[in-house]
Parts: sequence; C-alpha cells; structure tokens
Amino acid sequence: MNLELALRMTEAAIRRAIREGAVISVAVVDEGGYLVSFQRMEGAEIAGPGLAQGKAYTAVALRRPTAELAVRTAPGGDLYGLPRQDYVCVGGGIPLWADYGGGARVVGGIGVSGGTITQDVVCAEAAAEVWRTR
Amino acid sequence: MNLELALRMTEAAIRRAIREGAVISVAVVDEGGYLVSFQRMEGAEIAGPGLAQGKAYTAVALRRPTAELAVRTAPGGDLYGLPRQDYVCVGGGIPLWADYGGGARVVGGIGVSGGTITQDVVCAEAAAEVWRTR
Amino acid sequence: MNLELALRMTEAAIRRAIREGAVISVAVVDEGGYLVSFQRMEGAEIAGPGLAQGKAYTAVALRRPTAELAVRTAPGGDLYGLPRQDYVCVGGGIPLWADYGGGARVVGGIGVSGGTITQDVVCAEAAAEVWRTR
Amino acid sequence: MNLELALRMTEAAIRRAIREGAVISVAVVDEGGYLVSFQRMEGAEIAGPGLAQGKAYTAVALRRPTAELAVRTAPGGDLYGLPRQDYVCVGGGIPLWADYGGGARVVGGIGVSGGTITQDVVCAEAAAEVWRTR
Repeated sequence: MNLELALRMTEAAIRRAIREGAVISVAVVDEGGYLVSFQRMEGAEIAGPGLAQGKAYTAVALRRPTAELAVRTAPGGDLYGLPRQDYVCVGGGIPLWADYGGGARVVGGIGVSGGTITQDVVCAEAAAEVWRTR
Repeated sequence: MNLELALRMTEAAIRRAIREGAVISVAVVDEGGYLVSFQRMEGAEIAGPGLAQGKAYTAVALRRPTAELAVRTAPGGDLYGLPRQDYVCVGGGIPLWADYGGGARVVGGIGVSGGTITQDVVCAEAAAEVWRTR
Repeated sequence: MNLELALRMTEAAIRRAIREGAVISVAVVDEGGYLVSFQRMEGAEIAGPGLAQGKAYTAVALRRPTAELAVRTAPGGDLYGLPRQDYVCVGGGIPLWADYGGGARVVGGIGVSGGTITQDVVCAEAAAEVWRTR
Repeated sequence: MNLELALRMTEAAIRRAIREGAVISVAVVDEGGYLVSFQRMEGAEIAGPGLAQGKAYTAVALRRPTAELAVRTAPGGDLYGLPRQDYVCVGGGIPLWADYGGGARVVGGIGVSGGTITQDVVCAEAAAEVWRTR
C-alpha cells in the first residue's frame, strides 16, 4: 500500500458515495492494519473515524470482507465465538490482495462507514476496484 | 447545543420522570458527544452517569435513537456486528437535529437512564420535544 | 449530596467564573465519586467533562484537594508513586466533608476545569463555600 | 473544519516535510477532536497514526499547542498532574481557532508525527498557516 494509491481509492469511494447520496468516512490501512489515509465527508457521522478504521483493520486482520464476517459471527455461524470487541463485523471492510511470488497476501484494507450497510459495501467495492486495476 | 437549552431539556425529562414515578439520570451532549449538562435525581442508581451519557453519545455518534439500535444490533439485525463496547444500544438516547443551510445535522443528544426502558424513552422524548419547539 | 444542593454549588462556581472571565466545566459527585450534576459553560473546552469529573472523583477518592495532590505526587513528594492514570492531580478538585455522629466523612466532591489552575481553584472554593454554609 | 481545507493543510505539511527530509503522518480533526483527514507518507513509522491523531486531539481538547503542554506537564510544571494517558503532550499538535460572534473558539486541530519534534512542529505550523490565511 502507498499513499498515492490510497488516495485514488478514497476518491473512488467518495465519488460513489456522492452518486448514492451518502456521506461517508473512508479509511485505507496497510498490511499491518495501520492507517495510511482517511477522509470524512462534510456532515458524516462522528462514529465514522472509528468504524471505517475498524472495518479496514478487521478486513486485514481476518483476511475477509466484513460483510461475510457479519454472517459468520452471528449465533449459529462458524465464527460465533470471536471476541467481538476486537473486530467490526458489519459490511464495508474489504481486504486487498497482492501476488508475492507464487502466493497471495493481504497487503492492505479499505473500510467505509456512514451510509446504509449496502451503501458502505458498494463504496468500498468502488475503492477495491481501483486496487484490482492498478 | 448550549447550557441554557440543555437545562430546560433536563427539567422537562425530570418533570416527566416524577409523573412516571421514576428516578432518573439525564445527560445532554453536544455535536461531538461531549457532556454539556448532567443531573441525577435523588435515589437514582449509580449506573446512571455512565448509561445516560453513553446513550446520549451513541445517539449522536450513530445519528439514531438508541431504541432503534437495540433492535438492529440484536442477532439477525443488520448492525449485529457493531462493536458493542463502544455504544449503549438500549432505548433512552435520542439525537437532536438542526438545519445547516440545505442539510440537517445532528448537533447534540439526550440520554436518560434509571427507569424502565419505556420510562427512559418517554422522559427522553419529553426533553427532545423542548428541543423541537425551541 | 443531593441534586438541589449540587445545583446551588454549581451556580456559585459559574457565577465566580463569569467574574473571573473564565469559561469552565463544573462537576459534583457523591460519596462514591459518581456524578450528581455537571454543567459546561458555552465555549468551554471539550476536555472539561473528563477533567472536572476526574478532579471531583480524585478529591473524594483521596479525601484531599487536588491542588495539594499536585505537589505531593510530584517527584520528591510523599505520594510520588501513586498510579497517575487513576487520578487527576491538578488543582480544582475539593472534597466535601460532613459530620456523622462523632466523626467526619467525605460525602461528595466538586471539580472545576477550563480556566487557569488558579481560576479553577477559586471557582471550586466558591462552590465549596455553599456546601460549608448549607 | 471541512475536508477540502483539511486536505490543503495536509498538503502544506507534507510539502514542508519533503523539504525537511522527514517522513511524517498528518492528522486533521474537527472541534470534537474527531478525524477529518489523515495521510501517512511512504515509509513513515507505524506509530504515526496514533501519535498524529493524539496530538491533534490534545491540541483541541486543551486548546493549546502540544509543545507548550510538553513543558507545562513536566515535573515542576503547573499541569504536571494531568492524566498523561489521555493526552499526547509533545510538540506537533496545534489548535485552530475561528471567530464566533464576539468570541474565538477552537474549531479543529492539526497533528504531525514522524520527524524530530522540531520537524513535526514546523510541518504543523505550515499547515496552520494555511488555516490562518484561508
């Protein structure tokens, strides 16, 4: 992950939010889950900094989209016993993969918060698409 | 949010609590979720300071009444994966909105704790009514 | 401690702050250190809720004015080893004593934050004076 | 505080860091101390997200440059007893003031971390200059 790419992903997420009529926060983190860039749109909720970063971190830490974790950590799900205070398990976080000579690794994550869960997911997907076509 | 208005809202909540036969704590916070005023009635539980402030903060941070969040963060709800240690998601917290040139923003919140959840909600509503008719 | 008296103490502190040209937060806590009332003046710093409550709690917990603790917890002071994360040891917190048949007990505390330390102390003293002459 | 201005301040800080030969993290927060934008330069330390945000928050919460707090919270300083776990009291955080009809208020803050303290301070100053001449 680098700052220039993080900013391009962030722009893509925000452009999509404007189309959706949502006001969002966007976090991009590196392979350690540490923040590389963050932007909160005018009027977006103050929970955004915590939740967007939390989703991005969670996606990196568990190497799965947080929307998938929402289902799997619910009662009856195979990850139900996960310590819920450590992860944000609602949709809007997506891990970013890269090839590392014969294998793939998670090298960063994107997290979006502020819209409906569906809006957060499509905005995060718009950012992830920039990553995939980098 | 300002102190004079916060005190009028608080009085309305307490007047309603007396009618309900409840003893409550009442917190009013600003747009950042920071306490502006707090009052705990004689005999109200010592959990009140934490819970009333937590409900008011949560209502501001997530821009929704905490009664709604109680349902949505339960298993099966769309916000089930939210980090529960950061928010108080039982009824009694209400966000307070104001117009800001073409848009509306949450500029404060009210939180009530000490009675039954139903009593907490009606007392918080009494305070929010003062806000709406300010 | 009761709410009516807490509010009178708070008013005395705020009246004094206005004379001093300071904008303050005022917390009153009970014998368990739990908040009874809190008021933050228009424009007072957002650290006020934490610091005013912290000073009031500290004054009750250690049964001493926090101004005294500021000196005694400094290097060379007799309380230097105190766990500093648990207490706010700058001036502005005052314990409130009452007679309990042959002995005296701390039954509450006042905490003020937002002005200079000297201003915080005189505002807290103004509130404590209401207590002493109750 | 708004995102567009936050980004312009961030650019000014990073431009200055490049001239200084420093790699930094830059946080801009609103009047509640909540993150509006954050950028970490390629190669900057992973402590940056925590420290830059902490400095910006501290500058807002206590309404003073963190460089000043570094001196005043040291042993012998008038704020020595401040709860150190809540604030980052080394240079690099600057509060941003605005006029509010007859008074001035802190409406945001900038925090820089990653260089020497002296470098962090001059980079934060470069950002604050954008604010003052906005």
